[in-house]
Amino acid sequence: MKRPRLRDWGVKIGHFATGPFNAITDVAGVKVGHATIIKGEGKLIPGQGPIRTGVTAILPHTRDLFHYRVAAGSFTLNGAGLVTGLSQVDEWGALETPVMLTNTLSVGRVHDAVIDYLLQYYPDAGVSSDPIIPVVAECDDSHLNDIQGRHVTKEHVFAALQQATSGPVAEGCVGAGTGMIAFDFKAGIGTSSRVLPSCHGGYTVGVLVLANCGPRHCFQIAGCQVGTLIQDMQPAPHPDGSIVVVIATDAPLSSLQLRRVAKRAALGIGRTGGYASHVSGEFCLAFSTSTIIPRCSSSLTVELRCLRDQYLDPIFQATIEATEEAIINSLLQATDMRGRDGHLVYAVPLDRLYELLKKQGLTS
Amino acid sequence: MKRPRLRDWGVKIGHFATGPFNAITDVAGVKVGHATIIKGEGKLIPGQGPIRTGVTAILPHTRDLFHYRVAAGSFTLNGAGLVTGLSQVDEWGALETPVMLTNTLSVGRVHDAVIDYLLQYYPDAGVSSDPIIPVVAECDDSHLNDIQGRHVTKEHVFAALQQATSGPVAEGCVGAGTGMIAFDFKAGIGTSSRVLPSCHGGYTVGVLVLANCGPRHCFQIAGCQVGTLIQDMQPAPHPDGSIVVVIATDAPLSSLQLRRVAKRAALGIGRTGGYASHVSGEFCLAFSTSTIIPRCSSSLTVELRCLRDQYLDPIFQATIEATEEAIINSLLQATDMRGRDGHLVYAVPLDRLYELLKKQGLTS
Amino acid sequence: MKRPRLRDWGVKIGHFATGPFNAITDVAGVKVGHATIIKGEGKLIPGQGPIRTGVTAILPHTRDLFHYRVAAGSFTLNGAGLVTGLSQVDEWGALETPVMLTNTLSVGRVHDAVIDYLLQYYPDAGVSSDPIIPVVAECDDSHLNDIQGRHVTKEHVFAALQQATSGPVAEGCVGAGTGMIAFDFKAGIGTSSRVLPSCHGGYTVGVLVLANCGPRHCFQIAGCQVGTLIQDMQPAPHPDGSIVVVIATDAPLSSLQLRRVAKRAALGIGRTGGYASHVSGEFCLAFSTSTIIPRCSSSLTVELRCLRDQYLDPIFQATIEATEEAIINSLLQATDMRGRDGHLVYAVPLDRLYELLKKQGLTS
Amino acid sequence: MKRPRLRDWGVKIGHFATGPFNAITDVAGVKVGHATIIKGEGKLIPGQGPIRTGVTAILPHTRDLFHYRVAAGSFTLNGAGLVTGLSQVDEWGALETPVMLTNTLSVGRVHDAVIDYLLQYYPDAGVSSDPIIPVVAECDDSHLNDIQGRHVTKEHVFAALQQATSGPVAEGCVGAGTGMIAFDFKAGIGTSSRVLPSCHGGYTVGVLVLANCGPRHCFQIAGCQVGTLIQDMQPAPHPDGSIVVVIATDAPLSSLQLRRVAKRAALGIGRTGGYASHVSGEFCLAFSTSTIIPRCSSSLTVELRCLRDQYLDPIFQATIEATEEAIINSLLQATDMRGRDGHLVYAVPLDRLYELLKKQGLTS
Repeated sequence: MKRPRLRDWGVKIGHFATGPFNAITDVAGVKVGHATIIKGEGKLIPGQGPIRTGVTAILPHTRDLFHYRVAAGSFTLNGAGLVTGLSQVDEWGALETPVMLTNTLSVGRVHDAVIDYLLQYYPDAGVSSDPIIPVVAECDDSHLNDIQGRHVTKEHVFAALQQATSGPVAEGCVGAGTGMIAFDFKAGIGTSSRVLPSCHGGYTVGVLVLANCGPRHCFQIAGCQVGTLIQDMQPAPHPDGSIVVVIATDAPLSSLQLRRVAKRAALGIGRTGGYASHVSGEFCLAFSTSTIIPRCSSSLTVELRCLRDQYLDPIFQATIEATEEAIINSLLQATDMRGRDGHLVYAVPLDRLYELLKKQGLTS
Repeated sequence: MKRPRLRDWGVKIGHFATGPFNAITDVAGVKVGHATIIKGEGKLIPGQGPIRTGVTAILPHTRDLFHYRVAAGSFTLNGAGLVTGLSQVDEWGALETPVMLTNTLSVGRVHDAVIDYLLQYYPDAGVSSDPIIPVVAECDDSHLNDIQGRHVTKEHVFAALQQATSGPVAEGCVGAGTGMIAFDFKAGIGTSSRVLPSCHGGYTVGVLVLANCGPRHCFQIAGCQVGTLIQDMQPAPHPDGSIVVVIATDAPLSSLQLRRVAKRAALGIGRTGGYASHVSGEFCLAFSTSTIIPRCSSSLTVELRCLRDQYLDPIFQATIEATEEAIINSLLQATDMRGRDGHLVYAVPLDRLYELLKKQGLTS
Repeated sequence: MKRPRLRDWGVKIGHFATGPFNAITDVAGVKVGHATIIKGEGKLIPGQGPIRTGVTAILPHTRDLFHYRVAAGSFTLNGAGLVTGLSQVDEWGALETPVMLTNTLSVGRVHDAVIDYLLQYYPDAGVSSDPIIPVVAECDDSHLNDIQGRHVTKEHVFAALQQATSGPVAEGCVGAGTGMIAFDFKAGIGTSSRVLPSCHGGYTVGVLVLANCGPRHCFQIAGCQVGTLIQDMQPAPHPDGSIVVVIATDAPLSSLQLRRVAKRAALGIGRTGGYASHVSGEFCLAFSTSTIIPRCSSSLTVELRCLRDQYLDPIFQATIEATEEAIINSLLQATDMRGRDGHLVYAVPLDRLYELLKKQGLTS
Repeated sequence: MKRPRLRDWGVKIGHFATGPFNAITDVAGVKVGHATIIKGEGKLIPGQGPIRTGVTAILPHTRDLFHYRVAAGSFTLNGAGLVTGLSQVDEWGALETPVMLTNTLSVGRVHDAVIDYLLQYYPDAGVSSDPIIPVVAECDDSHLNDIQGRHVTKEHVFAALQQATSGPVAEGCVGAGTGMIAFDFKAGIGTSSRVLPSCHGGYTVGVLVLANCGPRHCFQIAGCQVGTLIQDMQPAPHPDGSIVVVIATDAPLSSLQLRRVAKRAALGIGRTGGYASHVSGEFCLAFSTSTIIPRCSSSLTVELRCLRDQYLDPIFQATIEATEEAIINSLLQATDMRGRDGHLVYAVPLDRLYELLKKQGLTS
């Protein structure tokens, strides 16, 4: 049985319409690819398995990323995690590599593999051009996955990058989301988008999350206190995780504006009940496909066309809405997962959830 | 008729219990005082009126503030406003003056008056001791108030400071809140508190807000989409305002921890529907009455007792809950206000609101 | 006898040439005005005098500041001070008011007076347009000045603003610099500029400082350890002060780039021996007269022409050089000042200093 | 012939005395280890060589790092680089892993190898305890080294960690410094320390740098314009690099205080002529061996003894002095290095340099 996304039930988050795929890929040029690794069962043997992990690649646009950098900015709600390359993104206001998502202990290997991948295309990097610093973000999937084993290989990274496509995005237990848990339900990858009305420029804002945070009792959907109403189906105790939010838009935003947009994604996290726990790494990264910053050029100056600040508010709202819905989608699309040491994490029970949302008048 | 607070209807925000007053003054030693200025009607004559403004004073504790500074930290969700003294609070991690709230153009005069007030007690400041930099925050009440007139005088400032008390806190159209608007309803001062269970230390977190932000359509209460359901009773068009959140706690927190607590207040703003618009100044300031940093001492070191980070999460949650409820209280407690040029801002209609909340099963 | 500036001795700081005035006013359109208040002698009677203070106004350009905002960004090396409006400058990346410098306790009154001044030109502010948040920065001149008296009046503020001119800038004991002390010598206002060669765009970078920081023993000029070599002529003990650095340029820089430029000014402070003491407020604010951000416009987007990042380095260097030289100029141009309670602060002794610099081969 | 350190010539930077080794290891418990990789000559064959690189390990103390975390804080002068784990260090104010230095493209592999190393000691990490996020910083050695080859292996990382010792620290072309260039001379690892007089607590501040930044013409030593005076001996054109500064102290500092200390290291960079170029990653990380933050504990609170802020200034000065001297030591201790494609980078010529410093009266 195919699990629904929140919209399939007619539940609307916020005010703006979604794009055709209700996904980050509604922003033209953005591509997403996953490599999912599920292998073995039973008792954890560190280094061997069981394996419940993966890697997800987000390609900001279809041109040469390294030479046609996109304007970007980030916000860290809680820094207890790792996103490589983020300080450079913020210093330069530009993103020049894919954005990779994976598990906490695999960041080093994924970072290394992305370099391998990019050196194929930019053989001058670190020879006659600058070295590359890939953006790799992580969440902790160790409750289900043999995280010490660092099972994401170069092949997985290449696969995620090469198979990245536009169009619908697989959600839930895929790619980096394979072993992730949010609100004590199975979660992982989720995505959503918003299209602004033409009076606001008609821009698209797309969000993809790797959701791995939040305790059950805080869980809300569109204000419905799901976490209070469904208290059973708990996993074994485990530390709180993290969340990574990637925001893409075709609105022509400056780096400073994108930093402000990234900040609003935090409010979207908050609306699902997230409170950014002490141990959680909560990172938001926004980029604009309309603001290309060329790496090389003979001219002294560059022309940038930016949205006037007065028109930012709809972008802010769209970001919050899409972040909230992406997180919910990550939960609805995930399925029960049994991992290492027999740890079982339930997906949110669809029938009970539907009843709750219906009772509150949230379904169509 | 006395307007209710949200709790009077049995609506609960979040999971923790409130303190006895459900106010920032539940944190022992914290005092709040208001001076409210309402004068004149009809057409705006800049410099004369009509006046709908005031000033609010928050005293962090009952000892000598300048010499027994409290640990403090802040977070700025959107910086389009002014809080004097905030960079010093963050550099030193300490608050050494009262926190004053007023309107945007009165900041200078209030700042000056607070210096007058404090010089009475610290006659050495700027002579044989450091000068004083008071903390004064603002929101824009110009839709109702002759803000150009800067009608908050030294007398009002002294009154707010001198009459500051513990116990129940007046909310709504009082003090700095007199002319404020949130979600296109009349708002102003609101407060709320949470008391953690003893297993989490039994600490109290109290929040006071000066609420002046948010468009109607985003307004939510406990997830109920009030702003969509009550679309009439709109004021004349006016620019979006700001919000100031002051968080007090008796939990023994370090400055770094308080900065993190202040960040969570932003999530509380988000849960009411706020999205931190471009023109909004959204400032959160947290302090701990249990972490006193003496100004003078003969010893080289100081002993600090701080909550272990692992116990921060309940503080984070309590902060979000109390912020959300304080904002709602600011709206429920406010009353219709007609101000300059006949501008009328309605209070949220209690009967209709009650029905909405009841229908969603939120009332007791 | 006219005191020299550092260049008059042939001492060169750094590599780039200065502009015609070697002043912030070398950036076309920038104007500077001072109001200097020197009155009374002898014992301090708080509220009466003696007075050794003032106010300085920097106008970023000659057009309507409020509607044609300039791109801006700031960096705070140590936040123990106050600059009103800075969070808004950084949030929006724009400066929309004059920049005022004064003493610590006069910030409120100057802030208020600037509002009076600006309301003359923008009578709609706070009525049908946004309220104004002026930028006012401070240093502590209480060792010489009756700072409690807050003697900077509205008349002084208006005078500084109205008399602001392009061309040479008075330095030393003028305006806000009247009572300031740096490296235990008399200091105050200083300025300097750099013009980049045409291969780097031919841009001008101008810096103005209000210098009030640093202990004697750290004082350096072009690496010459002046503070070690001139240990006498000490003032009575007093707390360390602060420094404000304002950087103007006609290079077309974005807000993000200007924030980075402002950061480099801190390195210029460091090169004079400053170490940003615990009690010092060290604020750097940079703006570009070539990047105008209109307040109002009918279009959805705005075109910005920005320097390519690859060409920033000469701007960074010029900023450091001009900051260092501006601080030295503030010292060379200041004269002995006797203030409250007979406190005497010596100007740096020119003959001895010249000998030291000559001995090191620094003079021409 | 053994190359001297700056002190061996009697040149003094600043005012405070050095520790016995004039090294970061003067802070009791701090250990440093290097693995140096020099192999091959001639034309670059990416992936094969020539190799001029390495890895350096700094162990903050001799106890269990993961469970007895040290208070820490960082400052980023220019973010164009990568330090993994830094956002977590700043969020928690604690350092819980060694600090590793290496080349830009090897960060992934070193990160991964450090995990291998630490899992030996903390087999529960990522199983029943939190995963580990090591701190790994980088500079770009691609002018001399086959950086694409990523030749730092797990064996090198283990060797650097296992061979880390207290006592004298090898400088120049060792460990991560093997292929680094500063001011267009050969540089690399440098270190220095300061011991405060007992009236200031008698604390030690130790600094270790990986120096790879700055153009020749800006190079200064104790104010002597070495870069202007020695213009020959230039390497082939290459992009500017970066610098990493690690500051250790036994002064009992809080995380907030350490963040402020780290900021001062930037001023030390500035005093050598560094201006933090656009492409340079300039990261400063400070930790205190006296402020241990236990990972696990049954108590709700922790007692911290912190230096009173009023005593911070000598720590600030010591940090600047030691940073400046460490950078100079990295240059003096380095030797000529010929690397890939025959690229030759000269060490600073000792005889000429000595003459210059002597002429300025800087030598003893």
